[in-house]
Formats: sequence, structure tokens, C-alpha cells
Amino acid sequence: MTGLAARYRAYIDCLNRRDWDPLGDHVAADAVHNGRPLGLSGYRAMLENDVATFPDLHFDIALLAADGDLVASRLDFRVTPALPVVGFAPTGATITFSENVFYRFHDGRIGEVWSVIDRAAIERQLAH
Amino acid sequence: MTGLAARYRAYIDCLNRRDWDPLGDHVAADAVHNGRPLGLSGYRAMLENDVATFPDLHFDIALLAADGDLVASRLDFRVTPALPVVGFAPTGATITFSENVFYRFHDGRIGEVWSVIDRAAIERQLAH
Repeated sequence: MTGLAARYRAYIDCLNRRDWDPLGDHVAADAVHNGRPLGLSGYRAMLENDVATFPDLHFDIALLAADGDLVASRLDFRVTPALPVVGFAPTGATITFSENVFYRFHDGRIGEVWSVIDRAAIERQLAH
Repeated sequence: MTGLAARYRAYIDCLNRRDWDPLGDHVAADAVHNGRPLGLSGYRAMLENDVATFPDLHFDIALLAADGDLVASRLDFRVTPALPVVGFAPTGATITFSENVFYRFHDGRIGEVWSVIDRAAIERQLAH
């Protein structure tokens, strides 16, 4: 495991513990997510919103590739929505889907993120 | 650039030339794509269908991470649909979207693929 892969796993552990205060050890102050300049506070707000949407949110690393300053990860989710997801009201059902996501690290912190969620899988499971 | 990154770039060059006959140099006979056991012939049929849908299809590698037997790639597309895409009829407009995709190589060939397309971007551009 490269140093960056270990750093990435520490970031995911931080998210799974809902341990937001040290988030700045993992995410840069000027972090950009899918082209949006969220900064650290906006990034934290995004994660807190994700947890409000999925109270049982857990990040499960299915695939991980670290190369230079890039980490690519496939994250598997098995979650129960408590709020609408991509326009679909919660049904009480637990759904599964994946996210394929790239991170560019700057000085050991996540500086830029390019994430694609499998919306089609979510829609298949929540549409009626 | 690692050996696997170079092999991956050769695969993408093969696709961009529409050079299907040597596809078996790049894709394993028992290739699996998003859980579907396509094999080489099914994989080729998928690509030929993609080209029928987007006659100006070109694979542009935006991000690339190679690690062990894994390659992760973010592919950018700027294409003009000629056939319906995720249920939306062609409008004549050129659209842009990305794909985040992982490949596991077996003996130098693509054995398994986990692809997520940014469907939301496609829908935003084709829905009226």
C-alpha cells in the first residue's frame, strides 16, 4: 500500500466515524468537488447532508488505485434513505449502489474530487 | 508511465481508430462488464453499439491511475447522439459527459470492468 492509499483509508475511516473535526487533516482548505469550490466548510456540509440523507451511511472501499498524486476508488454503499434521493422519496427500503471517484491530493490533503454516482441503480430501486 | 498504463492507452487508441480486429489483444475472451459476462464478442458488440449511438465517439483520457492489476480512468466525451441515449431522443446537439471506470487486467488483457457514466449530465443536456 502506498503512502497515499494509507492516507485515503484514514480519510474514509474518519468519515465512517462521523469524526468531522479532524476533516481538515484530510481535505484541503480550498477543496473542489465536481467543479464546485466547496472549501473545507462546504465539503463538511456536503458530508453532513449525506449523513442526514442516509443515517446508516458507510463508505466501503471495493477498489482502490493510487498513482502519483491521484487516488481512484470505487465505493460501495448499502443505505436506507431518510430524505429524498435524486428526486425519489424514501420508501423505507435499503438500497445498494456504487460511486467511482477520483481524488487529486495536494500536500497530503484531498484538493480536487471527480465523483460519478450510479444514479441509474438508485432510480431502479426507488422508482415505482 | 507503468506498463499497464501504456497497455491501457494502446487499448484506447484501438477504440479511437475503430480498429476492432485486434480488440482481442486488449480484452480477455471471458471479459465481464458491470457484472455482465460479455466475453470478447459481446464486448465488441457493446463498442459497436456505442459507435452507432455516437458516430463521432472519441475516448479522451482525462485522469489515469494504474496500480497493481488495476487501471482507473476518467474518460471525457464530447459527442453527438444519432440514436436515443438513456431514453432521450437525439436533438442534433453535441453533449459532453464523463465516465469514471475501473479495469482489472488478467495477463495483460482487460478482464473485468466497473463503469459509471454521468447520466445526470446527459439528462440535463437532452431533457426538454
